[in-house]
Amino acid sequence: MADSSPSRSTVSKNALLLLRVLTVVFLLIALILIAIASVTDDTGTKIKFSDFYTYRYMISTIIIGFVYNLLQMGFSIFTVVSGNRVLSGDGGYLFDFFGDKIISYLLISGSAAGFGLTVELSRGSPSNSFTDKASASASLLLIGFMFTAIASTFTSFALPKKTDN
Amino acid sequence: MADSSPSRSTVSKNALLLLRVLTVVFLLIALILIAIASVTDDTGTKIKFSDFYTYRYMISTIIIGFVYNLLQMGFSIFTVVSGNRVLSGDGGYLFDFFGDKIISYLLISGSAAGFGLTVELSRGSPSNSFTDKASASASLLLIGFMFTAIASTFTSFALPKKTDN
Repeated sequence: MADSSPSRSTVSKNALLLLRVLTVVFLLIALILIAIASVTDDTGTKIKFSDFYTYRYMISTIIIGFVYNLLQMGFSIFTVVSGNRVLSGDGGYLFDFFGDKIISYLLISGSAAGFGLTVELSRGSPSNSFTDKASASASLLLIGFMFTAIASTFTSFALPKKTDN
Repeated sequence: MADSSPSRSTVSKNALLLLRVLTVVFLLIALILIAIASVTDDTGTKIKFSDFYTYRYMISTIIIGFVYNLLQMGFSIFTVVSGNRVLSGDGGYLFDFFGDKIISYLLISGSAAGFGLTVELSRGSPSNSFTDKASASASLLLIGFMFTAIASTFTSFALPKKTDN
């Protein structure tokens, strides 16, 4: 009986894979947007993301999140195709749990830092192509964070029970 | 036998209580520091946290984290003293899990936004009493986040097992 219908575990593995694909797509667009964001101010100086430490931090979190999710996507595809986990035993569950947890913290910190600075840069000056692209990038990063946070909830529930109660 | 020695579950309940007390203390100092931070600039204008949306957001996350941890502290003390949980059954575990998870995301977002803005405000100008206090507040908020993130790991491991591996 159990063999003929997909188990709850297979459903959540496919859902996890979908979440990782979505995260990778959103982070890739966020990366492109912040990388191409630039504006020339009144004095003729070109302003771009690398002029701000905060945006450099944001771009670092995007790249780390992107690489991590790509790696996990590879693992998930391997698991779905072969039916075996790359990391067997408790190690795999702990890697998923701590990986998703730490990367989701990293992604929201990058997004919050980017948003905070963009809001203050935009105040009192008309919106320009730089702040527009920076805030779009921070928004996409926030969406990427949300997918990773949902994935993190899944991998928390999938933890083998360690404590009594 | 099991009754005479503290169970793993009692140890982690006490550790959780300690983490919440520490979070409350750090958030309280962070709150005081950002609230009293002010500086008078060259033109005689007084600058304080409420002039920046980002610091207002940061102070909101501190207050929400403070209230949540105070509430959880009350629950923990009740549990330790009476031996009963306030919320019985799975509801209590889910409340702890999602509460810690969401509040820890909120705390790191406030800290990251505060840090990002403070770093940019401090660049090119000598450090002043306002940016010093703001960055101290963001640091304490980051420490408060770390305690909540550890608490969140505990409450994830305490989740009743929901999925078959």
